[in-house]
Amino acid sequence: MIKKLVVGLLIGISTFKAYANQPVVYPVNWWVGMKTNKLQLLFKSTDTTFSKGTISTKYPGVSVLGSQTFENGKYLAVDIEIESHTQPGNVDFIYSRDNAQSHISWLLKTRKSIPGKDFAQGISTADLVYLILPDRFSNGDTTNDRVSGMRDQSLNRADYYARHGGDFKGVIKHLDYLQDLGVSALWMTPVMENDMPNRTEHGYAITNHYKIDARYGGNDGYRALSDSLHRRNMKLVQDAVYNHTGTWHVLVQDLPAKDWLNQWPEYTSTSAREQALFDPYASQIDKKRMSSGWFVKEMPDWNQRNANVANFIIENAIWYIEEFGVDAIRLDTYMYNDLEFGNKCNAAIMNEYPQISLFGEMMVQQTPNQAFFVQNNINNAFTSNLPGAVDFVTLFNGLIPSLTQEQGWGTGIIHLYNVLSQDFLYKDPTRNVVLLDNHDLNRFFSVVKGDLAKQKIAYTWLLTTRGIPQLYYGSEVLMAGEIKPDGLVRLDFPGGWNNDSKNAFTGKGMSADEVAMQQLVKKLGTYRKNSSALKSGKLMQFTPKDGLYVYFRYNDQQTIMCVLNASDKPRKLDFSYFNERTNGFSRAKNIIEGTDIRFNDATEIPAHQEWVLELYK
Amino acid sequence: MIKKLVVGLLIGISTFKAYANQPVVYPVNWWVGMKTNKLQLLFKSTDTTFSKGTISTKYPGVSVLGSQTFENGKYLAVDIEIESHTQPGNVDFIYSRDNAQSHISWLLKTRKSIPGKDFAQGISTADLVYLILPDRFSNGDTTNDRVSGMRDQSLNRADYYARHGGDFKGVIKHLDYLQDLGVSALWMTPVMENDMPNRTEHGYAITNHYKIDARYGGNDGYRALSDSLHRRNMKLVQDAVYNHTGTWHVLVQDLPAKDWLNQWPEYTSTSAREQALFDPYASQIDKKRMSSGWFVKEMPDWNQRNANVANFIIENAIWYIEEFGVDAIRLDTYMYNDLEFGNKCNAAIMNEYPQISLFGEMMVQQTPNQAFFVQNNINNAFTSNLPGAVDFVTLFNGLIPSLTQEQGWGTGIIHLYNVLSQDFLYKDPTRNVVLLDNHDLNRFFSVVKGDLAKQKIAYTWLLTTRGIPQLYYGSEVLMAGEIKPDGLVRLDFPGGWNNDSKNAFTGKGMSADEVAMQQLVKKLGTYRKNSSALKSGKLMQFTPKDGLYVYFRYNDQQTIMCVLNASDKPRKLDFSYFNERTNGFSRAKNIIEGTDIRFNDATEIPAHQEWVLELYK
Repeated sequence: MIKKLVVGLLIGISTFKAYANQPVVYPVNWWVGMKTNKLQLLFKSTDTTFSKGTISTKYPGVSVLGSQTFENGKYLAVDIEIESHTQPGNVDFIYSRDNAQSHISWLLKTRKSIPGKDFAQGISTADLVYLILPDRFSNGDTTNDRVSGMRDQSLNRADYYARHGGDFKGVIKHLDYLQDLGVSALWMTPVMENDMPNRTEHGYAITNHYKIDARYGGNDGYRALSDSLHRRNMKLVQDAVYNHTGTWHVLVQDLPAKDWLNQWPEYTSTSAREQALFDPYASQIDKKRMSSGWFVKEMPDWNQRNANVANFIIENAIWYIEEFGVDAIRLDTYMYNDLEFGNKCNAAIMNEYPQISLFGEMMVQQTPNQAFFVQNNINNAFTSNLPGAVDFVTLFNGLIPSLTQEQGWGTGIIHLYNVLSQDFLYKDPTRNVVLLDNHDLNRFFSVVKGDLAKQKIAYTWLLTTRGIPQLYYGSEVLMAGEIKPDGLVRLDFPGGWNNDSKNAFTGKGMSADEVAMQQLVKKLGTYRKNSSALKSGKLMQFTPKDGLYVYFRYNDQQTIMCVLNASDKPRKLDFSYFNERTNGFSRAKNIIEGTDIRFNDATEIPAHQEWVLELYK
Repeated sequence: MIKKLVVGLLIGISTFKAYANQPVVYPVNWWVGMKTNKLQLLFKSTDTTFSKGTISTKYPGVSVLGSQTFENGKYLAVDIEIESHTQPGNVDFIYSRDNAQSHISWLLKTRKSIPGKDFAQGISTADLVYLILPDRFSNGDTTNDRVSGMRDQSLNRADYYARHGGDFKGVIKHLDYLQDLGVSALWMTPVMENDMPNRTEHGYAITNHYKIDARYGGNDGYRALSDSLHRRNMKLVQDAVYNHTGTWHVLVQDLPAKDWLNQWPEYTSTSAREQALFDPYASQIDKKRMSSGWFVKEMPDWNQRNANVANFIIENAIWYIEEFGVDAIRLDTYMYNDLEFGNKCNAAIMNEYPQISLFGEMMVQQTPNQAFFVQNNINNAFTSNLPGAVDFVTLFNGLIPSLTQEQGWGTGIIHLYNVLSQDFLYKDPTRNVVLLDNHDLNRFFSVVKGDLAKQKIAYTWLLTTRGIPQLYYGSEVLMAGEIKPDGLVRLDFPGGWNNDSKNAFTGKGMSADEVAMQQLVKKLGTYRKNSSALKSGKLMQFTPKDGLYVYFRYNDQQTIMCVLNASDKPRKLDFSYFNERTNGFSRAKNIIEGTDIRFNDATEIPAHQEWVLELYK
């Protein structure tokens, strides 16, 4: 009898046994109380006949709506709905097959923070973003420099293409430095696991969408960094990669179905010609080449027209925002995505997090090409819902020719004026993130061929123009480097490693020019924090003349006059010419110099200089 | 008694006497049966107290609605309405003053031609426009070379800036030449009287809006030219200047009121910076500088916000269309006009002549800047109703860099592809008039530094791309010249004058290259006439690769494949890659060479060459 009872108990227990090859479930968990309450869970087993079973649950408030199998028997996609008053807890999914049942546990968590307040706050023109390659900024924890079992074991600071050891703890260690510069938002190149054999420093070859790279500190480390930022009223920008993934991605290594990736008879790269997407005369093959060609061989291209793929990416996006407390998303290689997918993904994110900021990377040369990909004022067959752009056009077609060409009628500073005038194509150009450089571009100090005066003008412009300014780590201390020929634009931040001979955090070993540059960024970066005109004021720009470009940032409280002399001669400044904005004021404080200017002076701005003047009565 | 009778008759007659200083009336005449039946007639007298009188009429169907006086007592503006069934005839306007009356006769004519059929037909992509400076093309009548009483008596072909004697009769004499080239529409720089003391060759300083310049043949000569064109099924494009006028204009010399011109405390030129008109950040002073600054000192700037000035210009526009049988209007310096006036004027013209074509000159560098001034797909505070543009952007930002830069990823032919892809900003880019050069630009043969292969590519592209192609006189026979340093882009057409040692009409003295170029234009110009695909087909363009740019013009009847190899190496041509358009065809006729190509050949196009292939089954 006892034996019978035991057997009966064992049988009873066996109906609650965990599934022998406990599958992974994506998303790995969810939360109660989300607007996004219909999910497609992807169950991934090691059992090649897994798809022959069915999934059900008796968890109160969670219903299974349907499921789907794939070519690959290891997968099941299960649509569920989580009702609004569902309680958090471990959802017991029952896997039934051949009259046997087993159990798969999946966590429904309580939301810890308040979206829009504690996170998903969005970034605005009041912010100053700092972009870091986490492997290259600072090594705060040497124990994670090399992680056993990971494919890239190249750790070697002397090798540009090897891992250098930077991590989240290194970033946390230097948040004071960033905050002193005036930085209010941190953007790191992608932090998700890149378990690739080499060139893992950039992070764009994701291998697991639910793991933060262990070499940076893993999921816990990322959450700790996010918390550190939020405690300082700083914000976290996530770099998101939807277009492609790494060859060694867990799903790519074991594809649910061939059509999860864009397949070609032979390897076919993207044309990288965005024009085909808006060209009224485009061929279908060019559209397809652009959207479905692969970015590089090592990064398989998601087929985002596949609804399961779309679900996987979208749910992951919401997951990492909620899990890590992300405030804004920079969308990598946005123009290479299927644009309908892009809209769908953006809409899902903005539905859950209405205040979040989304801005896309479209590395294009001209305004129509960029405006097409964001919310714009153009009536077109396709309308993007993407709020903002990394503003490459203002850099390529504005600032760079402005500071590198000879000043002439159609050359030089007219480009900056012209490119901003084209803002009438955007719905809201202030959502654009303006920059001088990043990890894919020549360092700006190399662009201006080491000309400190021009570098100073560039930063002064960056911190006073329209849009959300973004700094690239180290350029504020004159780090140089060009993509061609050597690609060295991702060198280590000086002082980020113990015993670095030069330390830009402390000033050790820095040249006078480097200190001066850093001080200028700091001065304007911190001034900006308390300047309502720079944070949210309007822009008015005046037609440049003789290389002199004058623009204002202003509101009812404050008027800032920016005087940019891009020419190689001093230029007289006639305050009365600008009386639409100078009217009512009689003097100005030069924010950088700390000096005072009276309007009735015969004021002359020296060659190659920009002034930031706060006007007074 | 007889005496009394005579006196009585005389008194009777005296009540019908013409006004002592018979005023000029603008418009000088009108027509019955016009949609534009409410006019503001401007009466211009030599009597400084003329404005003290009033104007009335008893002409059946013509009513005076009101009148207006100005600072200058010589003028009266009189609003009239002409009812729909009014009969043609001499309208007797009664000028009443101090109980006396006198008479001013004004003609209401019968319309001779049918608008939309006989004239005001518009031009389309089926047309080929030829631009001429009438002083510089051909002298058909030496008796009008110097017109006594006119200020410019400079006649001297050896002096570039003097008059050379070309005229309408010279043009008429060579219409066969134009038609043989495939030309179907003639555009001459402005033909209205330019009674200025010098530099009258261009025609943009109008001195009388109702007189065609006597040196070209006057009003009758212009009508004869128009008739000659229409008899050949050719069309007449008028060059219209609304923005400014000549210092010696009849109204400027005796201004009705100071505010007929844009007045400034001291001479102020336009900034020539169109950006202020669309820039969301523009200042008022920059907008004003752009629109109300003067084009040059010798050309006073009409104040088009003055309703009387607007009426004067608009009524004149309708007048010359009707009087001379104009088919299309090229609007000079369009972006310098008051844009609300521009819309009003265009609307008035298109109301009267729905089929007419209007295209504006905006000499700008980038597509948004050009698209703003025409009907576009941009939601903006200001919306232009101008149908088309002289397409400088496709030239400056497309063709020129395509043929003059090294071929590279972001250089060379990609510009042409890119600029056309931006056509999504236009409502209808086929209304744009495409060109290689004109009287304000470097001759294209100089742009390509005398490279015949490039010149041939340019013309081949011009005659096969989207839009309405425009030739500039003489460039088809390799006339060269640059704006800077010498400005010599308006030289005489060889053979236009008797005894010219070189004659491009007959071939006398021409080099082999010149003949080859002329033959190519002729071949494609005439081929075009019977090519439905080139005349009205769609465009499909493929992303260029390695300097090879392939595009198609096609419709259900015909497919033309254009293969432009801008590189300095031969390029293989894979017909199957373009199967969206080549499908169903197996061979092609090379229109320029006359040769046949089979698709299965290992076809290679030589360096620096463009092919026009008509596809066959």
